Amino acid sequence: MEGFRVLEIKKSVFENNDREADKLREELKKEKTFLLNLMSSPGSGKTTTLKATIAALKDEMRIGVMEADIDSDVDAHTIAETGAKVIQLHTGGMCHLDAGMTKQGLEGLGTENIDFAILENVGNLVCPAEFDTGAVKNAMILSVPEGHDKPLKYPLMFSICDVLLVNKIDVMPYFDFDLEKCTEYVKKLNPNIRIIPISARTGEGIDEWAGWIRAQVAEWNK
Amino acid sequence: MEGFRVLEIKKSVFENNDREADKLREELKKEKTFLLNLMSSPGSGKTTTLKATIAALKDEMRIGVMEADIDSDVDAHTIAETGAKVIQLHTGGMCHLDAGMTKQGLEGLGTENIDFAILENVGNLVCPAEFDTGAVKNAMILSVPEGHDKPLKYPLMFSICDVLLVNKIDVMPYFDFDLEKCTEYVKKLNPNIRIIPISARTGEGIDEWAGWIRAQVAEWNK
Repeated sequence: MEGFRVLEIKKSVFENNDREADKLREELKKEKTFLLNLMSSPGSGKTTTLKATIAALKDEMRIGVMEADIDSDVDAHTIAETGAKVIQLHTGGMCHLDAGMTKQGLEGLGTENIDFAILENVGNLVCPAEFDTGAVKNAMILSVPEGHDKPLKYPLMFSICDVLLVNKIDVMPYFDFDLEKCTEYVKKLNPNIRIIPISARTGEGIDEWAGWIRAQVAEWNK
Repeated sequence: MEGFRVLEIKKSVFENNDREADKLREELKKEKTFLLNLMSSPGSGKTTTLKATIAALKDEMRIGVMEADIDSDVDAHTIAETGAKVIQLHTGGMCHLDAGMTKQGLEGLGTENIDFAILENVGNLVCPAEFDTGAVKNAMILSVPEGHDKPLKYPLMFSICDVLLVNKIDVMPYFDFDLEKCTEYVKKLNPNIRIIPISARTGEGIDEWAGWIRAQVAEWNK
């Protein structure tokens, strides 16, 4: 018994992705399910952050996770160990998910008993930024080893996110990462973004991040 | 005086990218220019590796660099400081380069006096793997902080590369990176790939990497 299933999602047939995304949000509103779209580069710590997030929130809300990947199911295995409901989505080589693909994932996951659903998008700072998935909020992770100049090079991703987690701050002493400069670059693109430094490994900052989610979920269910 | 120019490259109009790539390689062969396509995630250290590579080889070959990015010219600035010939390519939002786009870049760079040309592709482990750029060899960087499970999640990228640089080995003690496991995953996908552990920052492994390039360039000019 695996604890999760793998769903091969298909390229959407809808012409107007933005309209599909809005429709999906309306459905989520009715079901009282808050959907977060979590994006980042490969290896920035999305899955470790999710594990820490689930541990912090699982006693107060029902959590469901969609792990999107080109291939493999290593992340779904990791998340299944937390006890959260999880499904692995395979994108068939696609480097992002649009609203139609997200909807297939949500149907596969089953959202009727989920308060907080998370889409772990494909690890990529380019394509996922271009498609509204239908999520209520967009979050991204930038990890310290990637460098503070990434907002200059992938501006769209930093522009469309509501919250930025700066992860792996525990290894800050070993890298030339300037958090002040990073904040300056990001705020120039997106003045309203919330920036939360965390270490998913040590747990630093996870309380603040869990608090942000708690507030968003409450707001969505008003 | 900037030391480099910025070229907005346009989406290709060619239907058969593989044929265009083969044609480009034939032209490069005639010109005795060896083209390397360098790929990785954002923040794995492509530009720092390039700086170390140029320092190691600039006295024995004429080097030209194409810095491809969605936006910004921070990398071209960095490379211009090395004294190598450099051009910044903007992909107009595209997450990869195909052969036609690479050809535009090479024409912008000017290859008549270049022995070793390097395309620093867009930071992305998905899309760039799907398009033959016309390069003679494909190289990729995986950095230690990204984790050793990346070959499982982005198998195509690891399958199409001739050489894998495992970068940032100087920070190995601070991360749970298993080089043996990584090697096992990669060799399963691509038994003939050459794996070279390096630290672009400390210079460890750069001699071996420069030796690999030296041998490839010599082979290409035979």
